[in-house]
Amino acid sequence: MPNDSRQHPNADVRMRGFAERISTDAAFAWLNAELDRQGRLPLEVVALDGAAGRVLAEKVTSKVNVPDFQRAMMDGYALRAEDIAAASSQTPIEIEVLANCFPGKSFDGTVGPGQAVRIMTGAPLPAGVDSVLPVELTRTIDQRVSAIASLPAGKNLGSVGEDVGCGDHLLSPGRVLRPQDIGLLFSIGRSHVSVVRRPRVRIVVTGDELLPAGAQPQGNRIVDANGPMLLALVARDGGVPNHPGIVADNPEAILAAISEDADVILTSGGSSVGQEDHVPTLLAKHGQLAVHGVAMRPAGPIGMGVLNDRLVILLPGNPVACLWGYDLLAGHAIRQLGGRGADWPYRKYVGRLTRDLVSPVGRLDYVRVAISEGNVTPVTSSGASVLSSTTRADGFLVIPTETEGYAAAADVEVFLYD
Amino acid sequence: MPNDSRQHPNADVRMRGFAERISTDAAFAWLNAELDRQGRLPLEVVALDGAAGRVLAEKVTSKVNVPDFQRAMMDGYALRAEDIAAASSQTPIEIEVLANCFPGKSFDGTVGPGQAVRIMTGAPLPAGVDSVLPVELTRTIDQRVSAIASLPAGKNLGSVGEDVGCGDHLLSPGRVLRPQDIGLLFSIGRSHVSVVRRPRVRIVVTGDELLPAGAQPQGNRIVDANGPMLLALVARDGGVPNHPGIVADNPEAILAAISEDADVILTSGGSSVGQEDHVPTLLAKHGQLAVHGVAMRPAGPIGMGVLNDRLVILLPGNPVACLWGYDLLAGHAIRQLGGRGADWPYRKYVGRLTRDLVSPVGRLDYVRVAISEGNVTPVTSSGASVLSSTTRADGFLVIPTETEGYAAAADVEVFLYD
Repeated sequence: MPNDSRQHPNADVRMRGFAERISTDAAFAWLNAELDRQGRLPLEVVALDGAAGRVLAEKVTSKVNVPDFQRAMMDGYALRAEDIAAASSQTPIEIEVLANCFPGKSFDGTVGPGQAVRIMTGAPLPAGVDSVLPVELTRTIDQRVSAIASLPAGKNLGSVGEDVGCGDHLLSPGRVLRPQDIGLLFSIGRSHVSVVRRPRVRIVVTGDELLPAGAQPQGNRIVDANGPMLLALVARDGGVPNHPGIVADNPEAILAAISEDADVILTSGGSSVGQEDHVPTLLAKHGQLAVHGVAMRPAGPIGMGVLNDRLVILLPGNPVACLWGYDLLAGHAIRQLGGRGADWPYRKYVGRLTRDLVSPVGRLDYVRVAISEGNVTPVTSSGASVLSSTTRADGFLVIPTETEGYAAAADVEVFLYD
Repeated sequence: MPNDSRQHPNADVRMRGFAERISTDAAFAWLNAELDRQGRLPLEVVALDGAAGRVLAEKVTSKVNVPDFQRAMMDGYALRAEDIAAASSQTPIEIEVLANCFPGKSFDGTVGPGQAVRIMTGAPLPAGVDSVLPVELTRTIDQRVSAIASLPAGKNLGSVGEDVGCGDHLLSPGRVLRPQDIGLLFSIGRSHVSVVRRPRVRIVVTGDELLPAGAQPQGNRIVDANGPMLLALVARDGGVPNHPGIVADNPEAILAAISEDADVILTSGGSSVGQEDHVPTLLAKHGQLAVHGVAMRPAGPIGMGVLNDRLVILLPGNPVACLWGYDLLAGHAIRQLGGRGADWPYRKYVGRLTRDLVSPVGRLDYVRVAISEGNVTPVTSSGASVLSSTTRADGFLVIPTETEGYAAAADVEVFLYD
């Protein structure tokens, strides 16, 4: 644990400011060690038709051939190639059509020399033939069909197991299931699949100044923006959020909320070192407050720890800090517990910075930016309480801890919010 | 209509092959004209907490200030800056603390000269003060608090409307709502929002050779992969799919299915010109078969038209062709009807081709590729019936109509399936 010394297990330590903040590297070192310790969540078996986007938890091997029969790959005539070896548009060779052969319905007779069966794409190949002559290479006059070209034996046939062979290894654990994966799994006869259970995330929003989402702001109270924002973020990252409402700003209510059954607890508000910041104190007393205060802006007052063997992440109440703290640490944890990659779900964009950006060495900075015609311009309002700055922004860039910033006209990498 | 002449309104024209295929450009020209004619779908009002990812259909202007009061931006002491103008760590100035002021609770008295109120971040500023001195700039000995630094008036205050001003224009129609947008909308007192209705997409899978998804493949029958794959693709593109089951391969059942209420009808199977390909014939007879046969591979037999004023897209039954036909044309249409951008939802990647790729001028080719260490290698099995080739692939590249292909070692743009 990098900073057990920063725990403050009694209420005397109040409004003292953060004596010291650990680096984001140290914060990630603790978090990744904790995620390694927990491992990914156990699997669950779900119906395949709701499994797109889920993370596969099994190795999929086929127990069947797809198809399990030889089939026509074109609409045309199933015949023996040798019978029409001399056919051309100048010297058409007439063929005797015995029957029609449709997908799913086999022709039970045998096709003899000079004979053929009219066959549709996907239909099983009758006995006695070796090729399918496409309809485009035939001519029909008065019900009499002639081949106007030859073809090699075996042409336009799909073989047994052409798509999937019995025993083929198809998909590996960790795969985020794609639409075509779902189709393939159904095609080999699957109806259910083992996937990583989605992390259940309890969102604990505190603050007596907050009105519940859906209310009108009034007087000295503001409406909770963080709860609904975190709900959407958790769902985006493959978690199952649970946010039953604002939690009263007292130790008993908060302790009860952060003790509820979940895979991850996210708190919003009361994460700092002020008199009403109960969450760090409670976590230190009843569990472990491993990280409290990280050298970054915004979201410096973020905390992390463990309670009842569950990961708890303390997000600041300022909505911009809440968003950034979520994206940097909480989303990382939720995606990993659910078996997903650590990478942000944001697309990247490289553009030219329109003005200098300065950041002290030793602190990581999150900078909202607007993009216009390849130019990247920091969004002017930078207060951590100005949520509208994150909706005006097209994305953000990160100034790493060891970097002093970027000069105007530098090419910078932006993560897009769209 | 680029190719009304290609309609075949009677059943005599069967198994004739496509006399001519129109270019993908011409196919898009027809589709985009039809999408322009239909316009985006009408709006609907939905609860905000389920609106992340939906497409905004209104201009959002705030009717309130957020916040509607002046507030502290730091934990500290609300006071008059002039009272501590001479404070420093060498010359601390003691301040008289009258009360505590928490978020959501105002201090009703007035703060006089030399006095202060202990204030928490977010709490409303009491009357009579002009600044918040951060706790880090104070020293507390035996309950007596001293300022150890000065600060300018107005410091660490959040003003009325700092986040959102009454009358501010916040979001415009067409915005795909982000987690922070949901938070912001709640913060201005919204509980519902107008969004573009999601396109209802009826998936009509035909083919007597098909067993329903969830069954075991047996004999000459294969399990439907296209229906579940299309369900997942439509949902990914913001549509609401409806696929009640495989439709019997007869004209009455198919006509009933493609006549059902929906915004878009997607058919799979029976789209070509074979004897059992009822869908084009029915569409030509009862509506308009505007496009049938497009110069591309796979999915050449794709069709498009209108029935009961609704867009109908005829996808081939071969699963690779179904996937590609969906992605090229159907997904484009569904995203646009739902107010989304035309762009593919796939990330792009540029890598080096490991071997020549040849494609005739006049035909657009879809090529599945695997990526390894920056190398882009075409997936060897290229049959349109081999769905497993699309699950082995990391993505695909497109060889445009007018291009003869790419030489080995060329840099190519790949669209990633992940």
